[in-house]
Amino acid sequence: MSTWRTNIREVTPYTPGEQPNKENMIKLNTNENPYPPSPMVEAGGKEMEDWRLYPDPSVTKLVHALAQYHGLLDEQVFVGVGSDDVLAMSFLTFFNSDKPILFPDITYSFYDVWAELYKIPYKRVPLTEQFRLVKEDYQQENGGIVFPNPNAPTGILEPVSFVEDIVRGNPDSVVIVDEAYIDFGGETCLNLIHRYENLLVVRTYSKSRSLAGLRVGYCMGNKELIEALNNVKQSYNSYTMNQAAIALGTASLKDEDYFREHVAKIISTREWVGEELRKLHFSFAPSSANFLFITHERVKAKDIFEMLKEQDIYVRYFDKPRIDNYLRVTIGTDEQMQQFIDALKRYLNVK
Amino acid sequence: MSTWRTNIREVTPYTPGEQPNKENMIKLNTNENPYPPSPMVEAGGKEMEDWRLYPDPSVTKLVHALAQYHGLLDEQVFVGVGSDDVLAMSFLTFFNSDKPILFPDITYSFYDVWAELYKIPYKRVPLTEQFRLVKEDYQQENGGIVFPNPNAPTGILEPVSFVEDIVRGNPDSVVIVDEAYIDFGGETCLNLIHRYENLLVVRTYSKSRSLAGLRVGYCMGNKELIEALNNVKQSYNSYTMNQAAIALGTASLKDEDYFREHVAKIISTREWVGEELRKLHFSFAPSSANFLFITHERVKAKDIFEMLKEQDIYVRYFDKPRIDNYLRVTIGTDEQMQQFIDALKRYLNVK
Repeated sequence: MSTWRTNIREVTPYTPGEQPNKENMIKLNTNENPYPPSPMVEAGGKEMEDWRLYPDPSVTKLVHALAQYHGLLDEQVFVGVGSDDVLAMSFLTFFNSDKPILFPDITYSFYDVWAELYKIPYKRVPLTEQFRLVKEDYQQENGGIVFPNPNAPTGILEPVSFVEDIVRGNPDSVVIVDEAYIDFGGETCLNLIHRYENLLVVRTYSKSRSLAGLRVGYCMGNKELIEALNNVKQSYNSYTMNQAAIALGTASLKDEDYFREHVAKIISTREWVGEELRKLHFSFAPSSANFLFITHERVKAKDIFEMLKEQDIYVRYFDKPRIDNYLRVTIGTDEQMQQFIDALKRYLNVK
Repeated sequence: MSTWRTNIREVTPYTPGEQPNKENMIKLNTNENPYPPSPMVEAGGKEMEDWRLYPDPSVTKLVHALAQYHGLLDEQVFVGVGSDDVLAMSFLTFFNSDKPILFPDITYSFYDVWAELYKIPYKRVPLTEQFRLVKEDYQQENGGIVFPNPNAPTGILEPVSFVEDIVRGNPDSVVIVDEAYIDFGGETCLNLIHRYENLLVVRTYSKSRSLAGLRVGYCMGNKELIEALNNVKQSYNSYTMNQAAIALGTASLKDEDYFREHVAKIISTREWVGEELRKLHFSFAPSSANFLFITHERVKAKDIFEMLKEQDIYVRYFDKPRIDNYLRVTIGTDEQMQQFIDALKRYLNVK
């Protein structure tokens, strides 16, 4: 065997949710938004630069629009190809200690994948039986901390004071709070970046902004963190955001009414679906995200998952310890959710 | 000082070419294409999926179109966010030996940046006085080899037999040949991938396909190399190519006539500009790329660079050992190049 094989980096790739593509399917498995982006987004295409030219490597236009939107300086914002790119760059930039980084045992499934990829030591911190984070557990020695708030796939939100205690208690670590789902009813910890230089808050366009297909994510923090990220990013690929991502990403910020209206719609659908699910003897923690993490008192999650799939209704099932009897169900339109509920009713009544 | 600062990854970021944005400027500094992409590219936008949905993580449509275009199997093609992404992923995937990787001392300036970023040991192999690679120098112990062909910023092409000797002589290393500029008159070594399992050939849409702003690059090699790349890629970010990159990237392959015609136009402009430059006492090796790497017998490159810049004509100057008296001049339209030549004439006559 040639030696080059032994030098291939060994990884366990992340398994993304299924991406089926069928007419009339109901796709509730990857937390996308059921509503299209604001019409202003498409209109933003007119401001696209020439395709033949490299995009602006500093992505000034989008960075500036985001800074304005959040009341920050441009130097406090870093953008990337989805929040996955922003998070991966943050791991590479800030997690270079010999001490393990900490994240929950039940959380976004990419964290351990990146740690493995970059050979960063890590430790999974168990959630409680009720899937809550325990802030005292994040006071142990560490080389960095990362968690989503609301957490995924549970949808459970921790209050700002909870986040602040962790950030304040770890002045020697960068603490990354992944707010991918914060727009669906959570209170952001963004204001803490003015008081804590070790806090990085990550956001995405893929959920509340209906733009998963555009690949835009960003993070906010003090200038020094952002500068370090930019340096590492420029060492990797100067031109990662294409003309479409920059132009349409900027345009998306211009239609606040549309944004609020559609986020509110998803929240109200979520609450209604929750009530229906309780009637069917499902239980779940209150969700502050665009999904519900549900378990049934009698029927196995995996069986429900398979039943739904046969009807082209896709939800997410994780075959992992502690959560293998749960389903993560993205909130779709009212019509889609009615079909989902109807399918459950038919199945549970006969079963 | 808080410890988190000491854990920031130290990097020397790559310095991309200036990206000025002025009306009527002549931009010959980043090897972009002066002609727009085929009208079929814009038309490809109609085949774009919903922005609100994640793109296909396997990018099946674009991978398949590229495989068909090059007469390969889908399993022999890997795509990324520009060839920079493809190259960086390749470094991360294949260069994990303790032995140094090898690349020319004068070459694409990102190679050492990635090596530093991923902590890969490396060795710069000097070119000859005439900026030629010496194939025997690549027979020393190494953990991998990478070079562009034609080389950048020299534009000098080595024949396929030369590349083959290096690939055959290094069965224990992955050899990456970066063919970013191959369409401008070079003979590709692509066919060698059927005989050598350790060869990876990299291409980009940014030069000959007039799509630098779309961020599409790819590489081709045996299935095992491509699978390893896909595994590492899926460990980093499953969704890096946005809907625009996939749809327009696929459409670009459909208009071969347009592609050939505009590449031929650039080659003929290059030859004409070369003649004019010789008359003005510039010298340069024959270029097989969309740029010329020129030096003047009397006047310093840096002075010419500054003079041109004052007239909003941007070329690339590298303040680096051995090449600090050269300019890299991208081939623009005939009109742009005439203005460039006129500016040189005015300057050199009075100087």
